[in-house]
Order: sequence, then C-alpha cells, then structure tokens
Amino acid sequence: MQARAKITRQNIIESSSAVFLRKGFAASTISDIADEANITKGAMYFHFKSKELIARAIIEIQVEANETLHATLEAKQLTSFEAMIEMSHEMSRLIQDNIVYAAATRLAVEVGVFGDPIAQTYDAWNDPVTHLVKATIDDGYVSTTVEPEVLAEFLVTTFTGIQTVSLVQSNYGDLRERIDDMWRIVLPGILAPGNEDLAAKTCDRAAALTA
Amino acid sequence: MQARAKITRQNIIESSSAVFLRKGFAASTISDIADEANITKGAMYFHFKSKELIARAIIEIQVEANETLHATLEAKQLTSFEAMIEMSHEMSRLIQDNIVYAAATRLAVEVGVFGDPIAQTYDAWNDPVTHLVKATIDDGYVSTTVEPEVLAEFLVTTFTGIQTVSLVQSNYGDLRERIDDMWRIVLPGILAPGNEDLAAKTCDRAAALTA
Repeated sequence: MQARAKITRQNIIESSSAVFLRKGFAASTISDIADEANITKGAMYFHFKSKELIARAIIEIQVEANETLHATLEAKQLTSFEAMIEMSHEMSRLIQDNIVYAAATRLAVEVGVFGDPIAQTYDAWNDPVTHLVKATIDDGYVSTTVEPEVLAEFLVTTFTGIQTVSLVQSNYGDLRERIDDMWRIVLPGILAPGNEDLAAKTCDRAAALTA
Repeated sequence: MQARAKITRQNIIESSSAVFLRKGFAASTISDIADEANITKGAMYFHFKSKELIARAIIEIQVEANETLHATLEAKQLTSFEAMIEMSHEMSRLIQDNIVYAAATRLAVEVGVFGDPIAQTYDAWNDPVTHLVKATIDDGYVSTTVEPEVLAEFLVTTFTGIQTVSLVQSNYGDLRERIDDMWRIVLPGILAPGNEDLAAKTCDRAAALTA
C-alpha cells in the first residue's frame, strides 16, 4: 500500500509535468492532470490538495536534482572552468531527459504564478553561479576585468531565454546546441589573456558532447 | 459614435495588456478584462469575440511599432553598429513605456498559446537581426569569424531571457541596465580587431542613456 501510494504520487508528478509543459501552469486543470495520469480526481486530491502543491513538489525535486548535480561535478574534480561549462551542459541534459526537471524550469519562467517565491528561483541560481564565476577568475581562466555578479546574472538570464526559445522552437531538441553557441559567443570576450585557446577547446568538446 | 467605439477598443486593448502582464494570457479571463476596462462583457464582445483575438490585435500593434522603430532608426542615418545597439535600447524603452508593446512581448514568451504562430514571433526577429548583424560585419565593426545567423539567434534569445527575468525581478525597471550588461559582456568577444574601443564607448553611451 505504501509502495503503491508512492507509485501513484510519482505518476501524478510526472503526469502534471507533462501537462504543465504542454499547456503552461495557469491553463492546466486538475482534470487535465487526472486524465493524463489516468486516475480519478479523488485519488489526486488524496495526494495533492491543489495544483500549486504539485508545482511545489516538482520544484523541490529539481532542487534535489541540482544538489546531486553539484555533488557529482565536485566528485569529478574538474577545474573551475570545466565545472562552469559542464554545469550548463548537464543542466541542459537534465531538461532534455527528465520531464519533472524540465517542468520545474518551465514553472520558473511562468511569471507571477506564486508571486515572490518564483522570483526567488532566479535568485537561487545567482549565488552558486556567482561562486563558480569567481572561482574561474581566481584561477586565472576568466579575466579580472569581469564583474562576477554581472556575468553570473547574465548567464542565468541567457540560460532562461535559451530554454524558453528552445522549448517553443524544438521541444528542447536544440537546447545543447544553443548552449554551445552561447559559450562560443561569450567566451572570447571574457577569458583572461593567454587563455584564448580554451574557447576553441571548450567548444570543440561541447560540440562533441552535443553530437 | 465611431470615435467612441475607437476609444472603447483602445481601452479594451490597454486593459487586456495590463491583465495579461499581471496574470499571464492563460489565466486571464474575459471577466478580468471587462473589470479592468470598467465595461460590460457585452461591450467587450461587440469589439472582440475572444481573448485570442485581443492578443492578435496586441501583437499587430507591436508589429506596427517595430516598423515605425525601424523607419525612425533608418532616418537617423546611424552606422550599422550604432543601429544594432540603438535598436536593443529602443525596444527596451518601448517595453518600459508602452504597456501594449510590453504585453505583446510577454505573449510571445507564453509558449503554446497559439501553437505555431507564436513560434513565428521569434522567427520574425531572426531575419531583421541577422540582416543588421551582417551589416556590422560587412562594415568592419564585428569580426568576420562571427556567423551572423548564430549571433542573431543568440541576441534574440538573450533578449527574451532578459525581458522574462526583468519582468519578474523589477517589473522591467532594470531592463535597460541588463541590456547594457549584455553588450558589455558580448561585445569584447565579437568586435573586429581594432574596434576594441567601440565596446567601451558603446557602454559608456548606453550607461548615459539608461541613467
């Protein structure tokens, strides 16, 4: 029974993710989700009293997935520069492969749904990305003329735009190619003198990964 | 009577824009719009049979505003480089100052609302921006190593992200500052050799404009 409840809960979360991605959060109804999950509305309400609560569960799963991602990258003992590039590609891979992760990302873009808490999902990214960018500057990869907070905010914002457009244009099919283009355009202007070859190397490697 | 009908129509369009910006298109109802416009639902239906038709009217107004913007920039006889930078700032100014223009921009981000036609709003930007970028390369401002289609697509995508985040974080208050940050980060990596000073000049000028 406990196991069965877990399976139903997971089914609701995945079905909601599919519906939110297709219709957006605001236009999705509990009936849409119950249909997608092939369960009764009663069974839905047993697990979640509202679609807001489902959305929060989806966002929590993304937060956990990001913690796992950070731990995985740390275990790989990459340079700070590799970690920055790798993180962008691993997040893109999660969006492509994991419907719940993708839905969480989409929810963050749906402005005003929860008021303040959603705005905080952007803030939540600025700190770790600023931290990473600072490390790349300290380690001599990125130029000391770059303001880490400004670059971090720019990367988070650009990533938001890339996800949004990639979902509309290709259902995330071209997501990693767009991330590769982002680095190809941005890196030459931010790398410290003497690191110019890193841009070419990174993009070759990223191109191989996306192929 | 004709004049009065025009005023009511404009009232509906502006009120809908306010509602769409606040709640998103999917969550906005005809009742919300009638309340905002302070008219009856009957008067609403006389002018627009559905909120989709209002959205289309809003998007058409933006298309016209963009045509006017292009004509204005052309009349100024700017260099291709100045035109590229100026266009980004003028579009930001329109978003900040014109609620209908802002709503049209927000509608383009609301994925899947109209299916294909919305995806075309991104495509609609790629052509003119590619054209502008090509001119900046031909005129020697931007490096010949830059692929115009890739840079254009990147700029459109980044602008989308900037609008999205700026709306959530500051109700467009920091929009032009974010555009300035974008150029400050991107320009050093894309300018042709010998044009390095253009980045500093552009950003000083942009900073003065945003101040």
